[in-house]
Amino acid sequence: MSKRIITVSREFGSGGRSIGKLIADKLNYNYYDSELVSRIAKESGMSESFIQDHGEYACSTSSFLFSLAVSTGATNMNRLPISDQIYVMQHNIIKELADSECCVIVGRGADYILRDRADALHTFFYADMPFRIDRIVRLYGERADSPEKRLREKDAKRKTYYRHYTGRQWGVAQNYHISMNSGVVGIERCADIVAQIAKSFD
Amino acid sequence: MSKRIITVSREFGSGGRSIGKLIADKLNYNYYDSELVSRIAKESGMSESFIQDHGEYACSTSSFLFSLAVSTGATNMNRLPISDQIYVMQHNIIKELADSECCVIVGRGADYILRDRADALHTFFYADMPFRIDRIVRLYGERADSPEKRLREKDAKRKTYYRHYTGRQWGVAQNYHISMNSGVVGIERCADIVAQIAKSFD
Repeated sequence: MSKRIITVSREFGSGGRSIGKLIADKLNYNYYDSELVSRIAKESGMSESFIQDHGEYACSTSSFLFSLAVSTGATNMNRLPISDQIYVMQHNIIKELADSECCVIVGRGADYILRDRADALHTFFYADMPFRIDRIVRLYGERADSPEKRLREKDAKRKTYYRHYTGRQWGVAQNYHISMNSGVVGIERCADIVAQIAKSFD
Repeated sequence: MSKRIITVSREFGSGGRSIGKLIADKLNYNYYDSELVSRIAKESGMSESFIQDHGEYACSTSSFLFSLAVSTGATNMNRLPISDQIYVMQHNIIKELADSECCVIVGRGADYILRDRADALHTFFYADMPFRIDRIVRLYGERADSPEKRLREKDAKRKTYYRHYTGRQWGVAQNYHISMNSGVVGIERCADIVAQIAKSFD
């Protein structure tokens, strides 16, 4: 069965988004990153920046109501904490996308949400600290005085978010079909390899 | 700088050894797996089967004398537990090999031992349980009644061994440059991808 859906998980600054975009271009698939945020904003009436902040980094402390909402496909989520409401919306949109089109989805626990789909290929990218520091300072205009601290904070938040919503440990190779150090392998080559694997199932 | 050394870490039954052999063939590199065991047996006077059992699965409970032996390059190891003596010998042989030839080294914590070499490419292979079960029953003649239990025991032992001698968690993607699910990507394709990456640095 061909791999219609590629999920891209990544360390901040590893170039995961660029790799995802390149994969989408090579395969002629749709690409979802900030596009997912826009869609949730449109459906929920919340602002894009609020969703961006809560969509991959924040999580509630209790998960009972949340689990219930996900498992029952509840539409009335008013009693859920706001970060859980956003997660449930993301969860539903990601499932709908996977059902309806060929796409690359960056972040947002899509690897876990789509873990049982035989037509999905799950990827993870990371890199050494100097590569990531150079990248965020150069490309994102991050302040150059404490980029390592900022990267470590981002890593810790993603780890917590992932653990909370999936029960899994972030960065464990077995959660993905392929993981690569983008600093060593190279951004372009990472994308080439994933596109090549995805096509090999046609 | 070209990648002269490929280390292959793997879950038992994932086909890691076959992938390592294929990579060595494709790159025309020397291949070390049981060859490493034979060399240690020759140097130590111990039997190959004893070294096989202690070379990746057993570890002592105290690590002070062991750390001292590794850091000082001690040659008199009589006071070390036998599993640590074997580890120190493996450690020294792996370092010598990396200094002297192009090679593929399977298992034995070589990824950690050679972690600071810019000319080494570290790889990890794993697979889902049904793929591994089929493989060990079919290829290694393992008894078919409880292969999952046997795989879980092997995983647990490798995890403990790796933690003991490296201080790292086994299977974390960031320990390697590339990790692949060999059941999904395929044995041949995994080897192709690694050989292709190794050659790209020439």
